[in-house]
Amino acid sequence: MGASKFKDLRRAYGFDDVALVPGDVTINPEQTDIDFHLGDFALSMPVLASAMDAVVDVPSAISLGKLGGLGVLNLEGLQTRYENPEDVLLEITQASNESVTGLLQRVYSEPIKENLIGDRIKAIKAGGVICAASVTPANAKRFAPIAAEAGMDIFVVQSTVTTASHISRSYRGLIFSELSQSIRVPIIVGNCVSYSAALKLMEAGIDGLLVGVGPGAACTTREVLGIGVPQVTTTMDCAAARDDYFRATGKYVPIITDGGIRTGGDLCKAFASGADAVMLGSNLAQAQEAPGRGYHWGMATPHAALPRGTRIKVGIRGSLEQILLGPSTVTDGTKNLIGALRTSMGTCGALTIKDMQRVEMVIAPSIKTEGKLFQLSQNLP
Amino acid sequence: MGASKFKDLRRAYGFDDVALVPGDVTINPEQTDIDFHLGDFALSMPVLASAMDAVVDVPSAISLGKLGGLGVLNLEGLQTRYENPEDVLLEITQASNESVTGLLQRVYSEPIKENLIGDRIKAIKAGGVICAASVTPANAKRFAPIAAEAGMDIFVVQSTVTTASHISRSYRGLIFSELSQSIRVPIIVGNCVSYSAALKLMEAGIDGLLVGVGPGAACTTREVLGIGVPQVTTTMDCAAARDDYFRATGKYVPIITDGGIRTGGDLCKAFASGADAVMLGSNLAQAQEAPGRGYHWGMATPHAALPRGTRIKVGIRGSLEQILLGPSTVTDGTKNLIGALRTSMGTCGALTIKDMQRVEMVIAPSIKTEGKLFQLSQNLP
Amino acid sequence: MGASKFKDLRRAYGFDDVALVPGDVTINPEQTDIDFHLGDFALSMPVLASAMDAVVDVPSAISLGKLGGLGVLNLEGLQTRYENPEDVLLEITQASNESVTGLLQRVYSEPIKENLIGDRIKAIKAGGVICAASVTPANAKRFAPIAAEAGMDIFVVQSTVTTASHISRSYRGLIFSELSQSIRVPIIVGNCVSYSAALKLMEAGIDGLLVGVGPGAACTTREVLGIGVPQVTTTMDCAAARDDYFRATGKYVPIITDGGIRTGGDLCKAFASGADAVMLGSNLAQAQEAPGRGYHWGMATPHAALPRGTRIKVGIRGSLEQILLGPSTVTDGTKNLIGALRTSMGTCGALTIKDMQRVEMVIAPSIKTEGKLFQLSQNLP
Amino acid sequence: MGASKFKDLRRAYGFDDVALVPGDVTINPEQTDIDFHLGDFALSMPVLASAMDAVVDVPSAISLGKLGGLGVLNLEGLQTRYENPEDVLLEITQASNESVTGLLQRVYSEPIKENLIGDRIKAIKAGGVICAASVTPANAKRFAPIAAEAGMDIFVVQSTVTTASHISRSYRGLIFSELSQSIRVPIIVGNCVSYSAALKLMEAGIDGLLVGVGPGAACTTREVLGIGVPQVTTTMDCAAARDDYFRATGKYVPIITDGGIRTGGDLCKAFASGADAVMLGSNLAQAQEAPGRGYHWGMATPHAALPRGTRIKVGIRGSLEQILLGPSTVTDGTKNLIGALRTSMGTCGALTIKDMQRVEMVIAPSIKTEGKLFQLSQNLP
Repeated sequence: MGASKFKDLRRAYGFDDVALVPGDVTINPEQTDIDFHLGDFALSMPVLASAMDAVVDVPSAISLGKLGGLGVLNLEGLQTRYENPEDVLLEITQASNESVTGLLQRVYSEPIKENLIGDRIKAIKAGGVICAASVTPANAKRFAPIAAEAGMDIFVVQSTVTTASHISRSYRGLIFSELSQSIRVPIIVGNCVSYSAALKLMEAGIDGLLVGVGPGAACTTREVLGIGVPQVTTTMDCAAARDDYFRATGKYVPIITDGGIRTGGDLCKAFASGADAVMLGSNLAQAQEAPGRGYHWGMATPHAALPRGTRIKVGIRGSLEQILLGPSTVTDGTKNLIGALRTSMGTCGALTIKDMQRVEMVIAPSIKTEGKLFQLSQNLP
Repeated sequence: MGASKFKDLRRAYGFDDVALVPGDVTINPEQTDIDFHLGDFALSMPVLASAMDAVVDVPSAISLGKLGGLGVLNLEGLQTRYENPEDVLLEITQASNESVTGLLQRVYSEPIKENLIGDRIKAIKAGGVICAASVTPANAKRFAPIAAEAGMDIFVVQSTVTTASHISRSYRGLIFSELSQSIRVPIIVGNCVSYSAALKLMEAGIDGLLVGVGPGAACTTREVLGIGVPQVTTTMDCAAARDDYFRATGKYVPIITDGGIRTGGDLCKAFASGADAVMLGSNLAQAQEAPGRGYHWGMATPHAALPRGTRIKVGIRGSLEQILLGPSTVTDGTKNLIGALRTSMGTCGALTIKDMQRVEMVIAPSIKTEGKLFQLSQNLP
Repeated sequence: MGASKFKDLRRAYGFDDVALVPGDVTINPEQTDIDFHLGDFALSMPVLASAMDAVVDVPSAISLGKLGGLGVLNLEGLQTRYENPEDVLLEITQASNESVTGLLQRVYSEPIKENLIGDRIKAIKAGGVICAASVTPANAKRFAPIAAEAGMDIFVVQSTVTTASHISRSYRGLIFSELSQSIRVPIIVGNCVSYSAALKLMEAGIDGLLVGVGPGAACTTREVLGIGVPQVTTTMDCAAARDDYFRATGKYVPIITDGGIRTGGDLCKAFASGADAVMLGSNLAQAQEAPGRGYHWGMATPHAALPRGTRIKVGIRGSLEQILLGPSTVTDGTKNLIGALRTSMGTCGALTIKDMQRVEMVIAPSIKTEGKLFQLSQNLP
Repeated sequence: MGASKFKDLRRAYGFDDVALVPGDVTINPEQTDIDFHLGDFALSMPVLASAMDAVVDVPSAISLGKLGGLGVLNLEGLQTRYENPEDVLLEITQASNESVTGLLQRVYSEPIKENLIGDRIKAIKAGGVICAASVTPANAKRFAPIAAEAGMDIFVVQSTVTTASHISRSYRGLIFSELSQSIRVPIIVGNCVSYSAALKLMEAGIDGLLVGVGPGAACTTREVLGIGVPQVTTTMDCAAARDDYFRATGKYVPIITDGGIRTGGDLCKAFASGADAVMLGSNLAQAQEAPGRGYHWGMATPHAALPRGTRIKVGIRGSLEQILLGPSTVTDGTKNLIGALRTSMGTCGALTIKDMQRVEMVIAPSIKTEGKLFQLSQNLP
């Protein structure tokens, strides 16, 4: 018997592994077009805020909407479990590192109040912005009509990994075409990481796709479950599915890269990897308007038996407007993210997001960036 | 003369180098089947405890057996050298870092008492669980009948590297087919790292194969001898041998990945690399039931002239049940390992361990995980 | 539909990724020829000083010129905004880390005085050396005649990325052939990172090309914009364009690697990557003669809305002559850079810079250099 | 014009990048044969001590010879510049880090006394061991007859890089065939890193080849000159030249890997890369018998204008016998190096050094060794 191979392993890349290459043309940044379209909605910046309790509540969703982005409210978080979630939020931010996971497990065991779902959505709509709300697949059929009734514009069905085909003893797997017919608003589904799973979800009739598993700052899915695909590769794979699906059907299902973006540089690379929009968590948890008060935690953190995430201190670094639109007085890429996107597009000669998707990237691990190591050693005390 | 090549070098991968990719289907974790079969025995969890003195003694073997796993007792360790090994264990845990290697060299020079072999095995059997015991190849023929006589169910022949063909002046190399006929219990042999060596051992009639050399937490074989193959590659190579051997003969010789597993994520990757079961050392040395009392050391550590290992402080992190079955209140992947395996299988759409062996893996070094670096810098004081 | 690929990613390399391989011949270092020719000018060392305010002012440009190199004066920096820039330089070096970016944003908002352009250039020429001066593309047509009138010998048009084709609402893109005809001095343009952009600039009539984006010690372009190509790859790509353009037209447009050089080793690798000369920033900011007084900052640092760089403390390490020509009493590669180049060329058997461009390089990440890790662990307290 | 490629870059590997793979056979360590043959001389261990002042003087050369190895005395170091070098050695070990490079530059400017050359060689021969002595190429013709006259058995001609063809204004390049005829003792030449340079040196009539540039613990050649090829690749390349030359001519020119070996594991990998012997520096500088008294520095460190090396504190870790032959009570691979070689050979099924050269190696960067990271985090206070 000759030696045979058990399995092929493909190399996958994250934001830190790559860098953008300017091309043969440059463009003035203010001429770039960064609009994001989903169904009949158009955003003036391609940014969604994560459906996480430290990132989005009613006031922050309204603030972000007025800036041109889209906050996604989590319908299974503290906002729908507590009439006054502020007390619980305060308790979380004040807990010690040792006790916080236990506290999260406890406060998230409080049942969801269905009446609060409608209340929160109506409050966002009253702010005059587009309203997006998120549930897990298991609750989608139950909560979707309530949310739609209250005026929700965009529905997000999200779990660590969501597929078009789920096998379960306890409930019939969610069928997206049925859901789509029942509520008649655009449906974004996620998260997804592979070409074939993305294609199957598109074939099931979804309107947008959240891409990524494991890379978020508040997430330890890779340590706990071994699962996690770096964002550049997974975005490229799902973008290939989007483009193939568009060529075959004429329907364009936008890709939203979710997780792992820390800097303007990462955000620019997400688009160069094929994203149509990005979903930000930690960056926006650092806003003055964020409900997390300088802390952030993932929705898998409170899991009763297998928590996968941690509360992390992200600090408060400025207003939503400063973080997204500047001006910045820091030089580490954490402020004026949209200014950075426009400048990067101009430098790379991209007039539109579709142009930016075609910019050349090279594999160039940042851990070896020459200047940074120099700088590090020079600044030591 | 033109330039010629001296030797080919193949890239090998460890757990930190890879990550699992969810597929097109998801499954509820409680529907997964993780049984492990060896000969006529079936375990309800695919976990063996290492034949190391800090991990397995009589009570911990019984505890693990009742949970569904299998503890392997080392017949050449402290348990068979001392009537009351507790005193020696205490001395080891209390020694200073400087003196501990010398102490280990001394206490392991005490001769093995053959009567204690039978006593320990009978005590485990009295606990109502499957009994597995381990010896080195040099002692296999001498100790096997004693252990079998005492009721041992599964025999493990283990050294750093064990081959079907050993060249020696001092004793005739162990012939596994003879051993197999003499004791009539399933024989697990290890450790082994290559396709061809695995195949030769299977052809010699063994019933299970321990895979891996060098990656354990208490092992410095790579520093001392230069030897060590990362666990993902070695598991894939030996799994290929298993599958080829099964196709050729119809006999299925399960592969047990031994060493280097620190988290639930690593454990899940071992199965995705082709393992049928895993052998855990450090993780189980952290149990309240472990004889090491929060410390761990390898069986090569006490070597008289060339020690290859260190005593490391692993701490006590919970009961065997908490470590294996949860619930967990930590988020770093070190508790509820079986819960993590079932969740990972569900997320990857694997109903059985055989399905999990076929899950896609990508090369994605964890040192570059985006979120973790972010988190690190944010949590600094 | 079968899986398709979204985009190809090529691996790019920086100085830390590679090492030079000595060949079959060795040469005495003093026999090497390292002259650099640009138009009708010849430098006795292939070194330009960066057009940065911490590196080049009038006296340091004269000092460097007398040693055989070429200082490039920034015509849009402090030297042309302030009659007495020394006060501002002092203020910058005394600012706290927290306040310095804001301070830089403020002092660089002072308007440029056109009369100071001529004054600075005449002062350099009065020192008896070649005078090079730099502007951004947007100001090139306006400032070029003033500078040429004052006696400037070499004109540098430089921005983060400069292309032959710039799209703008606010001004007609700079046309290099027109500029070239209007001032009749050699024009160096930069920065540029790709083969095709380099070729297009050469076809537009430039006389020298600055290569590199993002790797400098005072630059955070990669963090902010995601843009940055490691210097070895970008130098090799632009050198290929230079050689192809020379073969096609007979005109040789020299390549100047700009950024990321910290040591003599890096400098040697730049030439082995194809450079005809190098531009140094941080290294020369460490000279006693440097206006930065032991500090360094990039020209993108003061950007009003999106600063991309930091002030770093580089220290004062010796005179320009010691840094470039030695002798050295340090062993870390930061002094006697030209001595290092000649010794490296001799060891690699290169008589000329063109020979050095052909020396073999291997990919050999320095983070794994055996001796250094050993040394590190041995020197710990 | 289409894009063309400037230069190919090959990946090179060092000891930390690779690991050995056990094969299908194992052997008892005491049965292995590790003799090293050079000309008519045979060593019972394949170990040479570096011609460095911190490693070899007369007494340590004798001690190592009696253990079966070979110390190489540097004829251009302190031993031939000073009648009583002990005072200077003491001064070096007591100097501060800041002053030591200047001190080394000064003490090595003392002229060489030709009478001391003969004295030192006769003293070693009086100890009853093989005597090897080393000079640089420039001094080879002048010192060779003096050393041969005094009884030198093996002549070593060594510089950072030595080629068969050296271009010089100041002296006619050394012609090895002439040297060989004039002294009639085996000549070892080094250092060399490439296949073609190795082949040319063999064709010039040398009897042994030192392989490696830059990886030593006391060497900063890579930082200063950019030159350095990791030891696994360079050993494999030169071993390929040796084997090709042997096939073509029937003359076997052994390869001696010099530099970068810190542990038994590294030493084993050197042989698996094709070495016939190894030259050790730092390891033997740690011996009680070493003249460096716990310190080590390279011969390029004292260079007057471009020092390339540092004095490092290596500590005193035991006698030469303990370091080479054990027994060891440490577990980090720094003691009982020969015991480690024999054990590794046995584990890999290699009876002879030629067998060890054929053992499989995989690329498996040690920075990702699972257990080590675990251990690190567990041992933190």
